[in-house]
Amino acid sequence: MPERGLLIVLSGPSGVGKGTVRKAIFESPDNDFEYSVSMTTRQKRPGEVEGVDYYYRTREEFEALIAEGKMLEYAEYVGNYYGTPLDYVNQTLDEGKDVFLEIEVQGAKKVKEQVPDGVFIFLTPPDLTELKSRIVGRGTDQLDVIEKRMEIAKKEIEMMTLYDYAVVNDSVPLAVEKIKQIIKSEHLRVDRVIDSYLKMLKEL
Amino acid sequence: MPERGLLIVLSGPSGVGKGTVRKAIFESPDNDFEYSVSMTTRQKRPGEVEGVDYYYRTREEFEALIAEGKMLEYAEYVGNYYGTPLDYVNQTLDEGKDVFLEIEVQGAKKVKEQVPDGVFIFLTPPDLTELKSRIVGRGTDQLDVIEKRMEIAKKEIEMMTLYDYAVVNDSVPLAVEKIKQIIKSEHLRVDRVIDSYLKMLKEL
Repeated sequence: MPERGLLIVLSGPSGVGKGTVRKAIFESPDNDFEYSVSMTTRQKRPGEVEGVDYYYRTREEFEALIAEGKMLEYAEYVGNYYGTPLDYVNQTLDEGKDVFLEIEVQGAKKVKEQVPDGVFIFLTPPDLTELKSRIVGRGTDQLDVIEKRMEIAKKEIEMMTLYDYAVVNDSVPLAVEKIKQIIKSEHLRVDRVIDSYLKMLKEL
Repeated sequence: MPERGLLIVLSGPSGVGKGTVRKAIFESPDNDFEYSVSMTTRQKRPGEVEGVDYYYRTREEFEALIAEGKMLEYAEYVGNYYGTPLDYVNQTLDEGKDVFLEIEVQGAKKVKEQVPDGVFIFLTPPDLTELKSRIVGRGTDQLDVIEKRMEIAKKEIEMMTLYDYAVVNDSVPLAVEKIKQIIKSEHLRVDRVIDSYLKMLKEL
């Protein structure tokens, strides 16, 4: 049996560019992980393909999977369910392949509870690193605007604490490179490889 | 104040090639960490330079530093002390620079106790990944030879459990690349960057 794959979760505040970064990762030549296709109850749009864009299911089918505990995470959005089917993820990990999820922060929280040894990567808005100038730099801003920015920044930083890594999305190619580095070095972590060594010893 | 640097500890069984890998890392163009020069009580050899090869101190001076708790780790070897002076390490980390130590496993164990948030990298003999064939593959080997190999392998694997990462030294350039990747992604760990974000928020 191969070493179990890694579950990689890319998330971050909405609008940060998760989808763009995820696409760039999968378009890059040397990626060797599987993208977990989400399941939805929304109508298939022209050009979309079952199993590529989404798995399309009825509301009843989706709710049955929820009831059976077969959704790793899910959420309802504008009257439709969106979620990650558990079976595909487990099967792929068991085959020794890494599975890549790009999901919203609420979903990532649920995945973290179920798969604490996943690799959780938080994509950070580029300007979070320039918080100060963003928040108080422009002298013309109203106090309520400044306070609102503070609130958003606080929430983003609080979200971050649930993750293993924070990658600033200041440039897509750079973010892609960093995420790939993280995944490669996570594979070198002793707690991920030690079992296979111990097993080898036992089998002798 | 800059973000505190990382303490990177490269170690592994004797003969695994730690020194070669360390030299290759420091000779590579894009390394940006400081090598911690060891202190010793042995005689300076022709060509060696104080502060480059070692800091050369008398036995009395070395023992005074030990007594003051100013050695991060030390060991006695063939009648001479060898060790890592703590002040240089702390000062460099405080400046926001990464410090790189290449030390024996006993020393690494002591450093781990004092600096648990260091990055501990275990360099693995290439053939540890081919344990089985190494140990029992050759039909001509005597049982005691096989058992001795088993013992060594067991000890190496036990050592590994104290480390964060295991890097196989099957090729020096590859090992160097992996170690650099590890260091880069360790800098992206949330628990290493979150403080600077929280501080930013507080200062506003």
